[in-house]
Amino acid sequence: MSATQRATILLAHGSTDANWLAPFQTLYSNIVSHTEGQRVELAYMELAEPSLQAMVEQLAAEGFGEIDILPLFFAAGRHLRKDVPLLLDEIQQRSELPLTLNLHSPVGLEPEIAEAISRLVIRRLS
Amino acid sequence: MSATQRATILLAHGSTDANWLAPFQTLYSNIVSHTEGQRVELAYMELAEPSLQAMVEQLAAEGFGEIDILPLFFAAGRHLRKDVPLLLDEIQQRSELPLTLNLHSPVGLEPEIAEAISRLVIRRLS
Repeated sequence: MSATQRATILLAHGSTDANWLAPFQTLYSNIVSHTEGQRVELAYMELAEPSLQAMVEQLAAEGFGEIDILPLFFAAGRHLRKDVPLLLDEIQQRSELPLTLNLHSPVGLEPEIAEAISRLVIRRLS
Repeated sequence: MSATQRATILLAHGSTDANWLAPFQTLYSNIVSHTEGQRVELAYMELAEPSLQAMVEQLAAEGFGEIDILPLFFAAGRHLRKDVPLLLDEIQQRSELPLTLNLHSPVGLEPEIAEAISRLVIRRLS
């Protein structure tokens, strides 16, 4: 039996405005260039393509049995605490193959990101 | 004539979910504790109080003639490129006293924040 193939989805909120999406695409390109040999994708919660649902289903169809979802959000509100877990549960239950979906906490809750923002603001104000 | 009094508003998107608001309040408290003697407030674009409009009007009424608005956003989409500038223009035009409102670019567009997020994700993936 081969080991389960893992992939990662970076999840952004999404917007109809291409100006909003652009920095996420830049961030994604930078991350991909530093994580060779790993499957990393970018998807959106709403208002932009690819959707999280489409991306999870695509990776599952390609044979990825474990998918980590890493939210590029400042904080966890309704979307990350309710909508996304519900969606992931539904996809998991519909899946014919074993599928593990891990929803991680948003990057903004990591102390190093909060501290970087805090330092930036304090410097601007001083 | 006295110099114009300046204040800063940290602007977050807002949410009906207190769990989403909490990290912004923590960030705000940390920033305030490091910027003594300066007037710094936290306000929301929508879905939470105080609103940006209420906060700008309150500070203007207190005599602050120049207000810097620093968005705690990852990127500038419709809200920051259209809604907020329109709102600020309206408030400025209605104001009886001279009022300068400076809308800054979102913190997420600062290279040091984008790099911190990028580093964090790359480390998690390696």
